[in-house]
Amino acid sequence: MSDDTTHSDLHERVRDEVPSHLDVTDVQFEGPDLVIYTETAQKFAEDSDLLGQLARSLRKRVTIRPVSGTHSSIEEAEQVIHDVVPDEATIRDLEFHPTTGEVLIEAEKPGLVIGQRGSTIREITKNVGWHPEVVRTPPMESSTVENVRNYLTQERAERRDFLADVGQQIHGSPEKDVDWIRVTTLGCCREVGRASFVLHTPNTRVLIDCGDKPGAEGEVPYLHVPEAMPLTEIDAVVLTHAHLDHSALLPLLFKYGYDGPIYTTEPTRDLMGLLQLDYLDVASKEGRTPPYSSEQVRQAIKRTIPVEYGDVTDIAPDIKLTMHNAGHILGSATAHFHVGDGFYNLVFSGDIHHEPTRLFNGAVNNFPRAEAMVLESTYGRQNDYQTDTEKSEARVRQIIRETYDRDGTVVIPAFAVGRSQELMLVLEEAMREDEIPTMPIYLDGMIREATAIHTAYPEYLRDGLRQRILHEDENPFIADQFQQVDGGQPMREEIASGEPSIILSTSGMVTGGPIMSWIELLGPDSENTLLFVGYQAEGTLGRRIESGRTDVTLEGTHLTLHCRIESVSGFSGHADREGLEQYVEEMNPRPERILCVHGDEQATDQLSSALYQKHNIRTHQPKNLETFRFP
Amino acid sequence: MSDDTTHSDLHERVRDEVPSHLDVTDVQFEGPDLVIYTETAQKFAEDSDLLGQLARSLRKRVTIRPVSGTHSSIEEAEQVIHDVVPDEATIRDLEFHPTTGEVLIEAEKPGLVIGQRGSTIREITKNVGWHPEVVRTPPMESSTVENVRNYLTQERAERRDFLADVGQQIHGSPEKDVDWIRVTTLGCCREVGRASFVLHTPNTRVLIDCGDKPGAEGEVPYLHVPEAMPLTEIDAVVLTHAHLDHSALLPLLFKYGYDGPIYTTEPTRDLMGLLQLDYLDVASKEGRTPPYSSEQVRQAIKRTIPVEYGDVTDIAPDIKLTMHNAGHILGSATAHFHVGDGFYNLVFSGDIHHEPTRLFNGAVNNFPRAEAMVLESTYGRQNDYQTDTEKSEARVRQIIRETYDRDGTVVIPAFAVGRSQELMLVLEEAMREDEIPTMPIYLDGMIREATAIHTAYPEYLRDGLRQRILHEDENPFIADQFQQVDGGQPMREEIASGEPSIILSTSGMVTGGPIMSWIELLGPDSENTLLFVGYQAEGTLGRRIESGRTDVTLEGTHLTLHCRIESVSGFSGHADREGLEQYVEEMNPRPERILCVHGDEQATDQLSSALYQKHNIRTHQPKNLETFRFP
Repeated sequence: MSDDTTHSDLHERVRDEVPSHLDVTDVQFEGPDLVIYTETAQKFAEDSDLLGQLARSLRKRVTIRPVSGTHSSIEEAEQVIHDVVPDEATIRDLEFHPTTGEVLIEAEKPGLVIGQRGSTIREITKNVGWHPEVVRTPPMESSTVENVRNYLTQERAERRDFLADVGQQIHGSPEKDVDWIRVTTLGCCREVGRASFVLHTPNTRVLIDCGDKPGAEGEVPYLHVPEAMPLTEIDAVVLTHAHLDHSALLPLLFKYGYDGPIYTTEPTRDLMGLLQLDYLDVASKEGRTPPYSSEQVRQAIKRTIPVEYGDVTDIAPDIKLTMHNAGHILGSATAHFHVGDGFYNLVFSGDIHHEPTRLFNGAVNNFPRAEAMVLESTYGRQNDYQTDTEKSEARVRQIIRETYDRDGTVVIPAFAVGRSQELMLVLEEAMREDEIPTMPIYLDGMIREATAIHTAYPEYLRDGLRQRILHEDENPFIADQFQQVDGGQPMREEIASGEPSIILSTSGMVTGGPIMSWIELLGPDSENTLLFVGYQAEGTLGRRIESGRTDVTLEGTHLTLHCRIESVSGFSGHADREGLEQYVEEMNPRPERILCVHGDEQATDQLSSALYQKHNIRTHQPKNLETFRFP
Repeated sequence: MSDDTTHSDLHERVRDEVPSHLDVTDVQFEGPDLVIYTETAQKFAEDSDLLGQLARSLRKRVTIRPVSGTHSSIEEAEQVIHDVVPDEATIRDLEFHPTTGEVLIEAEKPGLVIGQRGSTIREITKNVGWHPEVVRTPPMESSTVENVRNYLTQERAERRDFLADVGQQIHGSPEKDVDWIRVTTLGCCREVGRASFVLHTPNTRVLIDCGDKPGAEGEVPYLHVPEAMPLTEIDAVVLTHAHLDHSALLPLLFKYGYDGPIYTTEPTRDLMGLLQLDYLDVASKEGRTPPYSSEQVRQAIKRTIPVEYGDVTDIAPDIKLTMHNAGHILGSATAHFHVGDGFYNLVFSGDIHHEPTRLFNGAVNNFPRAEAMVLESTYGRQNDYQTDTEKSEARVRQIIRETYDRDGTVVIPAFAVGRSQELMLVLEEAMREDEIPTMPIYLDGMIREATAIHTAYPEYLRDGLRQRILHEDENPFIADQFQQVDGGQPMREEIASGEPSIILSTSGMVTGGPIMSWIELLGPDSENTLLFVGYQAEGTLGRRIESGRTDVTLEGTHLTLHCRIESVSGFSGHADREGLEQYVEEMNPRPERILCVHGDEQATDQLSSALYQKHNIRTHQPKNLETFRFP
């Protein structure tokens, strides 16, 4: 079938589905979306059910756009938008794009711009023809979110061509019958780090994640094997979440000529940009040659096609992707692949947290179908049970009180994304409820910026927390006690010599960043406490200190730690052994085969044995560089 | 290291190893061989141990050639050769190649040309400087052997360049450390047919076998997956034996641009040419488009680098290949790969027969090292025990006698290669010893030609048989009762209406060829017998008839079989279940991991379970398109 036939067939099919009094001037794919251009955009907006009906019958996501020239003038549209949208929405910016007939509305309360079931948006279109896109003004200023939005606005024209190309590629008919699918492991098997997989069908190759390995910077995913090469012929990339052990080397793909889409959630796109730029920064500070430049980070952002939890998205002629909340960090997703037309369903868990946390709802484990699963096993060992969260939080409060009483400061190394925000919520509540003395909580490194990104996407947070963030006076992240360390080393020295406080600082495994200065400043004094709350990987300084080493070298300076050293588990973003088992036990439907990955040899071995013995699921414990065929 | 450095380093190393009174003008690689060009070829020949010493210290196969112009004239050399070689050797042809200083000597008794431990050859070189290569005049005329030899002679100049290129490629230093090896299954997993594997290291990709699937012509190996693509970048091909389910699609590689070496034994090279040309012939007779042309068959022959059983051959900078007798058909081999410098050893069994047969010694299962094995499982089911050979032979004799007594003819469908020669030996002996009446045995299809190829390579046959073939009056294959059907359909009709006889005809699974005519002519009459002696694959007419079907359609003609239909097992070229277990049990060293392939789902499942349970070997039952990593 030629492209022309496809296009006119498609036009005809849409024409058939649309009531005859509505115009269908043109129909185009933009990435996974079907865009209908019409001279009667206003009339389309009158029928509130029509779009949903079209999406269901065409099995595509559908967008309506006015044909150029059929919408009112920008001045008139501005007026109408300000009239229709209630003032409480607080519109911060309007950006009109005449070529596509779109208007970007940035507001503090986007829900009020959208209206009940989209009624306000439809009202706007009905009156002016322009098609509104609504984004939230982050409650905390975030340079990342701002930069990403500005950048995407600049690149809007090029992006349209890109989306048209992608659309053409993914909406053709598959060339070959889908009679097998395969998964090749490029990393994170019998190890934690460098997550990367290839999902192949007879027509398509999708790369899932492309991370680094903390503590072993040279060990990158096996991208040079033929299953992944040439990278230019990979059809799509899917990113489960922004942590560097899943995302660090995505920009490298662009350096090697990949120019296709990355499917992920919006918050993951922004967080990945933040973390990748920091990754380059750390590499160059440590005298390593960064594997790519910031230009490729921007390229990755430019090529990202955002998907929302639960949206079924075509990413290839024979693959539909649905991302679901994984409960691990902001925007983290479990990727469900429906391959062929009913042929097979494969789920990549990404990193998951099964139970709800303060920040996120628990990982989704309900799918329409799921024959096989690639499951993380970070805490897969028999005895990998984490302390109950309440007990962990009580222990943290106790350690803080004890340190405060000794006139000391508590230093907590934390990942910028995830653990820090969880801790912030714990500390904010403890101070609010007077369970610990109120004192300054200093955020150093990227923690404040990462937190701001959280507030820009409240819909990805746990139900109750979302509401609190949307009301300024209840937003826990902007409580007074949180203070950004923005004065460099002099400010750190001042803080260190001052009153008792709490320091949250990156990196989380003491492999670089401002935490090094904090340990140097506070570690030698016995009144202070160094408190670990996250997984310390093999080979990191964090692991060595946690294991009892007190003579350390920090960026050239030798010193002996006399501070109290404590570890509290229970704040992990990962399900523990019990959580992993429960996740599988309660999974609906229960998969027939599970590959246990993203855990060391013992963890994957013990988890795969247990799942086989208890649930009679065929389990595997892959090595890197193996290929599994399904079914 | 640049090529120049390598070359001068090599020259220096050889210079160091060679006694100083001998000249080393140049040193070159020709494929896996190291060739020393010298002005003192005569003196090299004086030291009978020198070549062996050089080979051991350089760990290469070594050949000495005179520098052009340092050997005597062709006339003088002819004279000396005829003087030095005893007349009983019966020299048939001398072919001088002045550019390489080689002389090809074809003789009926090549052993007498070579002399005790090469003494006669050395004598020739010592006197004339020319380097002799010795080949056997086949005791039965074989157009295949003749054509292959003529063709290789014509292409000698191009072949030298090819060998120089290959030599350069395989004798460089490996670029990357060998820290993994992998095997990808492209076919013959949970099925019999389309054998094909990729063996990868970080530097090298080797394709092992590339066969078709009898009874399912469309199902070819998965050559289009990235592990095999692009075929132009495969470094080497290794062929275990000539049967079409291992060799049929090798020429296709050349159609798709592969232009590298095929490593296999000399008889396999010739048999593969014979069978591939027949494969094309059958395809076009059946109205299928042949996947390649005879030009590509010639190309495959031209690119073959013969290896002998037991010779350690470099085939890549990080892989050494040793082929060992597999006992299955003429030239069949088990391929042992030594990867990296001591890193890992992997054995591909090919098809094996563990016990000696009339034709061949039993399969070799002794290796210096063997950590993993890819094992055929054709008869891997629990109850796949074959009748004891003596009983099988007695049963065949009984069936022949009974048919003869009823004045009938016995029709035996047989593979041209292997089963036919085994049967010929059984029948010749039975007639010689009067256990069955002497009557004509008609050979139809390629059986006679295949037999002639057997006689051209007697060193590949079982110890006792080899001697008999070399003495004309004892050569069982040229006994009077064997008659070639060379008169087409009229001759077949005459035979069918004549006295009782025995017919051996291809194809072995009744999928085409002259057997179709024989069944049409003889099947409807109840005095005749149709006797199956080989494996009948799923989907073949042979399998349907063997399973009791008597209404058949043969090339458009419907008929009902009234003849007696019998099957006698025990003539298989494959080890039965007991043989497979014994092969593994007695294997030295016992491998740590075994992949059970080349058998249907039940066979591979049952064999892999049994080997695991009895010997605690980690076994797998791969599917096609999977990749296994070692160690």
